[in-house]
Amino acid sequence: MAEARSVDLNSDLGEAFGAYTIAPDEELFELISSANVACGFHGGDPRVMERTVSAATAAGVAVGAHPGFPDLVGFGRREIVATPDQVRTDTLYQLGALDAFCRTAGVAMQHVKAHGALYNRAVKDEATAAAIAAAVKAFNPTLIFVALPGSILCQAGEAEGLPIAREGFADRAYNPDGTLASRQVPGAIIHDPDIAAARAVRLVGEGKLTAIDGSELELAIDTLCLHSDTPGAVAIARAIRRRFAEAGITIRPMRER
Amino acid sequence: MAEARSVDLNSDLGEAFGAYTIAPDEELFELISSANVACGFHGGDPRVMERTVSAATAAGVAVGAHPGFPDLVGFGRREIVATPDQVRTDTLYQLGALDAFCRTAGVAMQHVKAHGALYNRAVKDEATAAAIAAAVKAFNPTLIFVALPGSILCQAGEAEGLPIAREGFADRAYNPDGTLASRQVPGAIIHDPDIAAARAVRLVGEGKLTAIDGSELELAIDTLCLHSDTPGAVAIARAIRRRFAEAGITIRPMRER
Amino acid sequence: MAEARSVDLNSDLGEAFGAYTIAPDEELFELISSANVACGFHGGDPRVMERTVSAATAAGVAVGAHPGFPDLVGFGRREIVATPDQVRTDTLYQLGALDAFCRTAGVAMQHVKAHGALYNRAVKDEATAAAIAAAVKAFNPTLIFVALPGSILCQAGEAEGLPIAREGFADRAYNPDGTLASRQVPGAIIHDPDIAAARAVRLVGEGKLTAIDGSELELAIDTLCLHSDTPGAVAIARAIRRRFAEAGITIRPMRER
Amino acid sequence: MAEARSVDLNSDLGEAFGAYTIAPDEELFELISSANVACGFHGGDPRVMERTVSAATAAGVAVGAHPGFPDLVGFGRREIVATPDQVRTDTLYQLGALDAFCRTAGVAMQHVKAHGALYNRAVKDEATAAAIAAAVKAFNPTLIFVALPGSILCQAGEAEGLPIAREGFADRAYNPDGTLASRQVPGAIIHDPDIAAARAVRLVGEGKLTAIDGSELELAIDTLCLHSDTPGAVAIARAIRRRFAEAGITIRPMRER
Repeated sequence: MAEARSVDLNSDLGEAFGAYTIAPDEELFELISSANVACGFHGGDPRVMERTVSAATAAGVAVGAHPGFPDLVGFGRREIVATPDQVRTDTLYQLGALDAFCRTAGVAMQHVKAHGALYNRAVKDEATAAAIAAAVKAFNPTLIFVALPGSILCQAGEAEGLPIAREGFADRAYNPDGTLASRQVPGAIIHDPDIAAARAVRLVGEGKLTAIDGSELELAIDTLCLHSDTPGAVAIARAIRRRFAEAGITIRPMRER
Repeated sequence: MAEARSVDLNSDLGEAFGAYTIAPDEELFELISSANVACGFHGGDPRVMERTVSAATAAGVAVGAHPGFPDLVGFGRREIVATPDQVRTDTLYQLGALDAFCRTAGVAMQHVKAHGALYNRAVKDEATAAAIAAAVKAFNPTLIFVALPGSILCQAGEAEGLPIAREGFADRAYNPDGTLASRQVPGAIIHDPDIAAARAVRLVGEGKLTAIDGSELELAIDTLCLHSDTPGAVAIARAIRRRFAEAGITIRPMRER
Repeated sequence: MAEARSVDLNSDLGEAFGAYTIAPDEELFELISSANVACGFHGGDPRVMERTVSAATAAGVAVGAHPGFPDLVGFGRREIVATPDQVRTDTLYQLGALDAFCRTAGVAMQHVKAHGALYNRAVKDEATAAAIAAAVKAFNPTLIFVALPGSILCQAGEAEGLPIAREGFADRAYNPDGTLASRQVPGAIIHDPDIAAARAVRLVGEGKLTAIDGSELELAIDTLCLHSDTPGAVAIARAIRRRFAEAGITIRPMRER
Repeated sequence: MAEARSVDLNSDLGEAFGAYTIAPDEELFELISSANVACGFHGGDPRVMERTVSAATAAGVAVGAHPGFPDLVGFGRREIVATPDQVRTDTLYQLGALDAFCRTAGVAMQHVKAHGALYNRAVKDEATAAAIAAAVKAFNPTLIFVALPGSILCQAGEAEGLPIAREGFADRAYNPDGTLASRQVPGAIIHDPDIAAARAVRLVGEGKLTAIDGSELELAIDTLCLHSDTPGAVAIARAIRRRFAEAGITIRPMRER
C-alpha cells in the first residue's frame, strides 16, 4: 500500500479564548501538518485566530477552518437542534471570518473540518451534513472536506464534488460500524501514547483498526486527528511521529497527498 | 458644483438579530444606494447577513461592512476601551464574515463603515482609527473607507491610501467643528423629514450646513447617511429623495461616483 | 365547575434585549395576571428585567421566572442537548438573577415557567424535567411550577412537591394526546382572536378543547398562556377577556386561586 | 496596632468558563479566607459558580460576589463606557445569580468586590462607584463592600452605609497616591513570593507600604487580595501565610474581624 505510506496529521488548534488557554498549541505546531483553527463560535477569538494562522504558517502547517455550534460555554460539544439553514449560514460566517486571517497572512485555506457536536451530528444527520457541504462548496469548492470515511458527512462532501480527506483517530475508540465511540463511554479516549501510536501505525500502514468490541475494521484514511485537548496530546503526537519514522510513514499536509 | 450633483445614500441595515428586528430594512432598500451591513458583533447574525446582502443586491444597492464593538446588549453604542490590536482583529474578523455572504451572493464588497461607538471613537482617537484602516487595507485595499470628512478616521484611511467616501448626516445635528453632536444632546437627532431633507439638499447641492449653535459649516461629502433606526427613517429617506429629484441631484452608489 | 370559573392569564414578557424589542409588553400588562419574565439567556437583559418586574408590579401582575436555554440568537427555541446538570444550574442562575429584581422591587416571585425549547424538551424528557424541578425546589419550594397538565414536566414538579399550575393555550393547536402541535405544523398557531377566545372560554369554563385532528380533549387548567409574540397577541388577549367577562370567568394571579 | 494583627485574605476564584480553566482554584481554597466568585459576565458559568461556592464552603472560605463588565473575551479587564444604570442593573443581576448558589449551598453571601476594569473605573469615577454601591445596598445592605481605601469606590460604599472592607494588594505596585499602578507599567505586578510576603507583613503589621516611586504610604487594610491568575499565585499565598504565622498575624474572613 504505497499510497498509504504518507499521511496528514491534523489537530484542533486556536481554541483559546480571551484570557483562557486550553491546549499546548505551540508544542503541537511542530508535530502536525494541518491545523483545524477554531473560528470564534465554540472557541477562538480574532486575536487567537490571527496568532494561530500566523504560527501555523511559520511552522509549515496548513490551515483549515474548524466551524462549530455557537456555544462557547459548551465548547461546541453539545448538539444544538439547529435548522440546516442555520448550520449552513453559521458555517459560511465562520469560513469567512477565518479566511480574513488567512488572507492577511498570505496563506490559502486548505480544508474544513467541523467541530465537536457539529461533526458528530453531521456524521449521522443528512440535512446537517448537506448544510455544511453546501456552505463549503459555495464558499470555495477547492477546499478539502475532512470527514469520517463512509459517514453521511463524507457522502455529503462527495455529493457536492468537494475533494475529501478521510479522517482517522488514533486516540479515540471506534464502534464496530466505523463510528467513534461516545466520549461518555469508558475507554473511548485513549490516553496511552504507545497504544495510540501503535494504532496509528497499523491504521496508516495497513488500513486496519481494532474496534471497542474487539472486532476488526478496515479503514483507508488520508488524515489522522490528534486531539489537542486530550491530556498527554503532545506525548501521543511525539510517540506517533517516532513510530511513523520507524515505519517509513511520512507526514504531509492533506493538499500535498 | 457640478461634481456635487450626485450623492450616495447609505444606511445601516441588517442589524436584526435572531428573533429580533430593529429597522424597516425592506422599505429602505428601495430608497438608498449603499447598505452598511452589520457583521454580528453589535447586531446581525449569519441569517440576517445573508438575507441582507441578497436583498441589497436584488435592489441594486451596494454592500459594505459595518463592523462594531462586540457588544450586542449595548448595540455597539458603548465605547469599549479596546486595544488597537483588538480593534484591528475584530474588524478583520467582521470583514471576513460578511465577505463570505458577498462571495456566495456573487457581489463585491464596496465599502467599510465603522458602527456606533467604534466610529465615534475612531473619529477622535488616532490609534483606533489607524487600527480600522489597517484592517481594511490588509483585507482589501480597494474597499472604500467611509469617514466623517476631516476627522482623524478620515486621515487614517488616507494614510493607508484607501479610497475615501466623505460622509454627511441629514438627520443628525453637527457641532461647529464638524463633529456630530452627541445623541444625548437635545436636538441631536432630527426627526422632521422636511428639515432633514432641506439640510440634505443644501449639504449636497451647496456643501453647506448649519451647526447646532447656528454657525455655518462648509462640508464636501460623497455619501449621506440615513439612520435606519431613527423613528421615521423611511419618511426622512422619502422626503430626501423627493427633494433631491426636484433639485436635480442623482443618487448613485459610492463606487460609481 | 365553580372551581373553573376563575383562571390566571400568563404571558411571556420582558423578552426584549438591549436596543431590540419584540412584544407589546406595555399593552399586555393591562390584560394579564401573571408575567413570565425572561432572565437573560434567551431574551431579556438586566435593564429589561428591572423594568418588566417594576411595570408588572405597578399593574398588579404577578411575576414569575421564565428560564430558557442559553441561546439568544435562537431565542431559546432550539433544543440544546444539555446535561441535566447544565439545565439545573442554568435554571438556578436565572432564578437568582430575576430574584434580584423582585427583591429590589419589593415583590415575591410567584412562579416559574420554562421557556420555548426548554419547556418543550421538559414536557417529554424526564431528566430535563427533573433538573428544572430540582432547581426550583432548591431555590424556593413555594414557587408555583407551571406545566402542561399530565406531562412529564408536570410530574417532575409534583414529585418535588411543588405547587403546580396546570397550563393551557388558547392560541396554540393541541395534538390528540394533549401535547402542543409543533410550531412548524400549519395551523399550530391560532391567529384569529375570536377562535382563540372561544377556545379559551370552553377550555376554562368546561375543561374541553378540540385537538388539531378534530378529536375532543378534556383538560383542567389553572392558567392560560397568551403568547406575547404571536402577531395579534393584544387583540387575542382583549377578545379573551371580553368573552371571559361575558361568561362570568374572573381573572386572578395563580397564587390567588 | 493590635487591631491590625488579623487580616482577611481574598482571592478571585471561579473564573473558569465552560471547558476553560484559568487559575489553580483548588490550591487557593486552602490558603485564603474569602473568595470573590465570578458571576458569569467576565468569567464563571453556572456550573463553575456552584462548584466554587460549594468548594469554598467546604474549605471554610467565605463567599462574595465578584461582578464585572459583560465582556468575556476581554475577561472584564477592558472598560466599557456603560451608564450608571447599566452598571447598577448588571451588578444586581450578577448578585442575584450568585446568590442562588449561595442559597442552595446553605451559605450567606459575605461581601461584594467589583472585578477588573469595573473596580478600576469605580475607584475613580463617582457615578460608577455609586451605581455599584446602590446595587449592593438595594440587594442586601449587610453585604461587606470591598474597596481600595480612600478611593471614590470606598466613599460610595460609605455613603450608602455599607460595611466596608478596605483592601490592600501584596502582589501589585502602588502609585504614591494609594492607587494601583496600571498592569501595563513595568513592575506593576510583583512575582517574587518573598517580596510580596514581606510587603504583606509590613502592610498588615505596620500599615505601611513602599510605592512604585520609592515613597512611603500609610494604609490601614482589612483584607489582602491575592491575585489568583498571577503566575506563582500559590507560591505567593504560601509565602505570605508563612510570614504571617511567623509575625503572629492571624487570617480570618472579613465578617469575623
